[in-house]
Amino acid sequence: MDDTFGALFHPASVAVIGASDNPNKVGGRPIHYMRAFGYTGEILPVNPGRHVIQGLPAHATLADLVALGKTPEAAIVAVSGDATREQVKLCADAGVKAAVIMASGFAETGAAGRARQQELVRIANAGGMRLVGPNAQGTANFASGAVLNFSTMFMEVAPQDGPIAIISQSGAASVMPYALLRQAGHGVRYLVATGNDADLDACAIAAAVAGDPEVRLILVYLETISNPEALARAAATARARGASIVAIKAGNSARGAQAAASHTGALVGNDAAIDAFLVAHGIWRAGDIGELVRAVPLYLQDHAPGQGRTVVMSHSGAVGVMAADLAERHALPLTALQDDTLRALGEILPEFGTANNPLDMTAALLGKGDMFPRVLNALGADPAADMVMIGIPVAGPGYDVEALARDAAAFSAAHRKPLVASAPQQGVREVFTRHGVPTFVTEADAVAALAQYAMHRQRSARVVMKPVPSAPPPLDGHGLQDEARSLALLAEAGVPTVSYRRCASADAAVAAFEAMRADGAGAVVVKGCAASVPHKSEHGLVHLRLSTPAEVEAAAHACLDTLRTLEVTEPQVVVAQMVKGRHEFALGVSVDPMFGPLVMIGEGGTLLELRKDIVTLLAPFTVDDARAACARLRVAPLFAGYRDIPALDLDALATAAVALGDWALRHRNTLRSVDINPLMVMAAGEGVVAVDAVVQLHEET
Amino acid sequence: MDDTFGALFHPASVAVIGASDNPNKVGGRPIHYMRAFGYTGEILPVNPGRHVIQGLPAHATLADLVALGKTPEAAIVAVSGDATREQVKLCADAGVKAAVIMASGFAETGAAGRARQQELVRIANAGGMRLVGPNAQGTANFASGAVLNFSTMFMEVAPQDGPIAIISQSGAASVMPYALLRQAGHGVRYLVATGNDADLDACAIAAAVAGDPEVRLILVYLETISNPEALARAAATARARGASIVAIKAGNSARGAQAAASHTGALVGNDAAIDAFLVAHGIWRAGDIGELVRAVPLYLQDHAPGQGRTVVMSHSGAVGVMAADLAERHALPLTALQDDTLRALGEILPEFGTANNPLDMTAALLGKGDMFPRVLNALGADPAADMVMIGIPVAGPGYDVEALARDAAAFSAAHRKPLVASAPQQGVREVFTRHGVPTFVTEADAVAALAQYAMHRQRSARVVMKPVPSAPPPLDGHGLQDEARSLALLAEAGVPTVSYRRCASADAAVAAFEAMRADGAGAVVVKGCAASVPHKSEHGLVHLRLSTPAEVEAAAHACLDTLRTLEVTEPQVVVAQMVKGRHEFALGVSVDPMFGPLVMIGEGGTLLELRKDIVTLLAPFTVDDARAACARLRVAPLFAGYRDIPALDLDALATAAVALGDWALRHRNTLRSVDINPLMVMAAGEGVVAVDAVVQLHEET
Repeated sequence: MDDTFGALFHPASVAVIGASDNPNKVGGRPIHYMRAFGYTGEILPVNPGRHVIQGLPAHATLADLVALGKTPEAAIVAVSGDATREQVKLCADAGVKAAVIMASGFAETGAAGRARQQELVRIANAGGMRLVGPNAQGTANFASGAVLNFSTMFMEVAPQDGPIAIISQSGAASVMPYALLRQAGHGVRYLVATGNDADLDACAIAAAVAGDPEVRLILVYLETISNPEALARAAATARARGASIVAIKAGNSARGAQAAASHTGALVGNDAAIDAFLVAHGIWRAGDIGELVRAVPLYLQDHAPGQGRTVVMSHSGAVGVMAADLAERHALPLTALQDDTLRALGEILPEFGTANNPLDMTAALLGKGDMFPRVLNALGADPAADMVMIGIPVAGPGYDVEALARDAAAFSAAHRKPLVASAPQQGVREVFTRHGVPTFVTEADAVAALAQYAMHRQRSARVVMKPVPSAPPPLDGHGLQDEARSLALLAEAGVPTVSYRRCASADAAVAAFEAMRADGAGAVVVKGCAASVPHKSEHGLVHLRLSTPAEVEAAAHACLDTLRTLEVTEPQVVVAQMVKGRHEFALGVSVDPMFGPLVMIGEGGTLLELRKDIVTLLAPFTVDDARAACARLRVAPLFAGYRDIPALDLDALATAAVALGDWALRHRNTLRSVDINPLMVMAAGEGVVAVDAVVQLHEET
Repeated sequence: MDDTFGALFHPASVAVIGASDNPNKVGGRPIHYMRAFGYTGEILPVNPGRHVIQGLPAHATLADLVALGKTPEAAIVAVSGDATREQVKLCADAGVKAAVIMASGFAETGAAGRARQQELVRIANAGGMRLVGPNAQGTANFASGAVLNFSTMFMEVAPQDGPIAIISQSGAASVMPYALLRQAGHGVRYLVATGNDADLDACAIAAAVAGDPEVRLILVYLETISNPEALARAAATARARGASIVAIKAGNSARGAQAAASHTGALVGNDAAIDAFLVAHGIWRAGDIGELVRAVPLYLQDHAPGQGRTVVMSHSGAVGVMAADLAERHALPLTALQDDTLRALGEILPEFGTANNPLDMTAALLGKGDMFPRVLNALGADPAADMVMIGIPVAGPGYDVEALARDAAAFSAAHRKPLVASAPQQGVREVFTRHGVPTFVTEADAVAALAQYAMHRQRSARVVMKPVPSAPPPLDGHGLQDEARSLALLAEAGVPTVSYRRCASADAAVAAFEAMRADGAGAVVVKGCAASVPHKSEHGLVHLRLSTPAEVEAAAHACLDTLRTLEVTEPQVVVAQMVKGRHEFALGVSVDPMFGPLVMIGEGGTLLELRKDIVTLLAPFTVDDARAACARLRVAPLFAGYRDIPALDLDALATAAVALGDWALRHRNTLRSVDINPLMVMAAGEGVVAVDAVVQLHEET
């Protein structure tokens, strides 16, 4: 860790400015916590009104500390909002490396508060000091006892060091998973609630703790991804040593976004872009606090999930039925048991030899004799059995739960395969938990946790960072581009486009038609071409299937006349070849200001927005990524051929999407969006053709 | 309750045939339980090998009991499978009213076992006795102590009477919710696991317990709905007195269905039909055991949820953000606070007067003074605030949790509005639970429970039972019907169809064309017409847009020739008016053998099966039901007009669906399926037209 993070998480000394003798005040809690939780550095209370605070000598001002040669490495600024600026200045001038600003009343209150906040950061950074906050509950490292944090929670739920970090923009969202994890017996090392993220933000702190070799899992709560690069760095650092990040990005609903905006005063990013960004970096997105912590024991145990193929065992058929339903819902594959495995099972008890997965193994699961460990060994030897789930709907007299738990734990340790148990009886769960087996109340939670863990680890393993090209000079122009320019830009991007000519008169249109016919074109389309009229069909500006000079001339006249009535000063038409594809797709780009170009591929046509059969990818991505994304479309069977539609050219579609994404990435500073609809997709080997396109560049600024 | 259920749940005496002195054997458990749980009737152990069993006098045979004038009202048959038949016969002959058969080895093992099982039922019913099982864990009424049930669970988790019934085909699935409910402090009256459902099945027993006026909630686990009429009766009985049914129907995945089939030896019904059936009867479908019990405290508290408009309160902005996200995910509406309410809130604290829902009310939620009850009173007075959710992410020193819980409970009692709390800290939950407030670990669970409760109660209130028409004489014919017959049947059903003529020669086709032209038709379609060739376009048997006699003649010749090569003995063509609709829909029926006609409405065309933009309804249903279902289609915006497509005739579509459903219901014994694709939907007021249709009747038997 660099200087700043060392100052926050392992400071030699911490000044508490606005220190309180009352351990239940904001300025009293951190002192109480640091003394209670084993902080071995120096705690330096600053308060002009008292000589002793919580038994420690207090100092009237920071200057007094400096005069004593006790310049603190870190500071907690726990004074009210108005006094904050002065104290930050004093800290920065004194050489404090990092400060946690607890006061509220800054960006979350509006523009004036945001200005005051920026001023704080400017003052701090000018002195070489970094800030957490303002409006921050603060940082905590329970390994060093450096708790620069005023949460009430640690009074109620005692901390214990462990391999988990919780990094959150919200105080509440930091202590909720903490409480659940501690109540389940898991240790947490870092707990940081960053508040307004004015300087050191949640993403940067996640990147810092990702470097701690003892941290296996980082849980993140964000309302805005203020610093995508830092979050990407956190993900890369964690991935490089096999650690994982699970994140909530809240405020994804319309109402939630509104609440988040008024809550943090921050821009809430585009949700699809966020999904794509998190997938691209191997970060699992959780939907709520329960999901955030659900699979924690699996991450901590850290057995490889292979392809996630799971064997479900129970002494109840109903558990098997429900687990199979749930596995399908969560796309968790169930193992097809191999012949060798069935033979081995049959040697234990003949009826096991014809078992199906889910396995109904009443006899083995009563825990008597060595039947259960032998069954587990048979599964351990099966290369297609990656994970095991054991459902114990009931236990009591006649069940040796202790033996089941011991054998289950031994299996997992010996074969290094994930194994979980589910049981509604608390007493049963306690036995399994004591043996270190990840345990769940319901099959639903167990299946969901296994599915998440397997899918997350598989995704992380597939993450490949394509280099981001540097941005070339800006594209000429601003705002909406007319069709001819849009098609020209797409051709430059490497997207196959229809052959067309731009014409300023009906005569020119006829000449273009004759030239195209000489080149072998059949029928043509004549369309009005004006940047100010992007929705052509609504104005009757699209004339299809024209095959004679007279038709072309009439259509061109009609378009030019209509454009004149729409006050287009230099009306033009496009004469384009009439192209009939096998199916209409759409391809688009929206350049997110945070995350860059998000490429959309979907079923095209006028009902695109209703059918919403689309997938999105964050550029840059590979042809394989694009193919895999297309396979998730509802109309994906078309790519293999369907009814009287031949197999479609998926390769050409994926290649066009990659080209568009790469081009959009190069022009990310100029480009706003691209809409190609339809993109005609031909039979396999015959390519794709962009027929209709609108490119939008940034407005003139 | 009738005699049979009286005998099961309040028997004057219970014989235990195969009684055991060991309370951990199948034949020992019920005796142990009945003595432990307060059964006041007579327990009559039957075992030829012992004189005393668990301190009670034992009898060698049932005949000995009868000779003593002690014919039992109910019997537990706990002997092995082979001996079961004889004991059932003895019970039936002796006048036992109901028996629980615990032995396995019947229908779940295959055809021979199924035959043995049918024989058991025949023998029992011949003597006027009803059976539960075989392969049943048994019945239990914890109010009377009549526990004819051998589950291990009651040794571990002590029962307590309460307003809940659990009725399950599986033993494990009966005790899992029991364990969760008891651990959460809820009492359970009935717990029944019916096994193979040979005679008295789970549905019939649900109908019986639905009549108990003290039962508020019936939780059901089914792998097959063996008796839809009984389940419908259970639902009607429960609805009539404001009680609710929540059910799991497991085995809905391909793998789960396979597991269920091998588990119960029973047919697993069509999942969409099951969904439609449960909705039609106001039964909420849960996906797993956790969902089955999640909203229990809300059902038991029984406050009306109104329109479900919810106010979320927290002292954390993040909880509000997440709750808003979750509310959107679960379609739970958040209240728009009325001006009066905001004024009242502003009188409590000025900043509350400009609050948004979710409400961030730190000051009120610290539980000091009377701020919190005053805020609640303001919400209580708001007619648009139907339900309240309070999120307590953290509490400790400075929080008066006791006061919060007391005030929350008082609000709910005074205003009779549902109120729930979520808190990750177990200690906080315990305080709220002690005050009777429904409490959840996460916001996600709280929101899901509120959404389920509100939606379920609203749906139940809307249930209207349309009378089921009696079935008329069967439709003529068998198997697939050719297009002309299919269209004729649809016309009879009241579905508008295209005008067409059936022709056996090209000359007849030309004559038909001329006649249709004389009636004002424009272009026509000529299609090959043969029941054995339902997929016409694959064979080039569809000729569109024909407008001259020569074209019609050529098309008819081509179709007739093709049909001859397809070995159609009397080839025919249909000449039909060419109809162009504003959008292609599809309308279909599949007659489920259990549930009757399931009507499907969706976007039509060749990609119907890929786009899967469909809704399903179980007949009979109303035009309003059909309209509401259509509103759930992705293409629903078309009904109001979209881009250059005018508003479509939703009324005509809904009316056609109702007509088709009613007709299918009348002909449910003869009809197998109907596929209309496309059904051309015109602009509003211009109707719908079935253009292509295949009706399938049952095969000859």
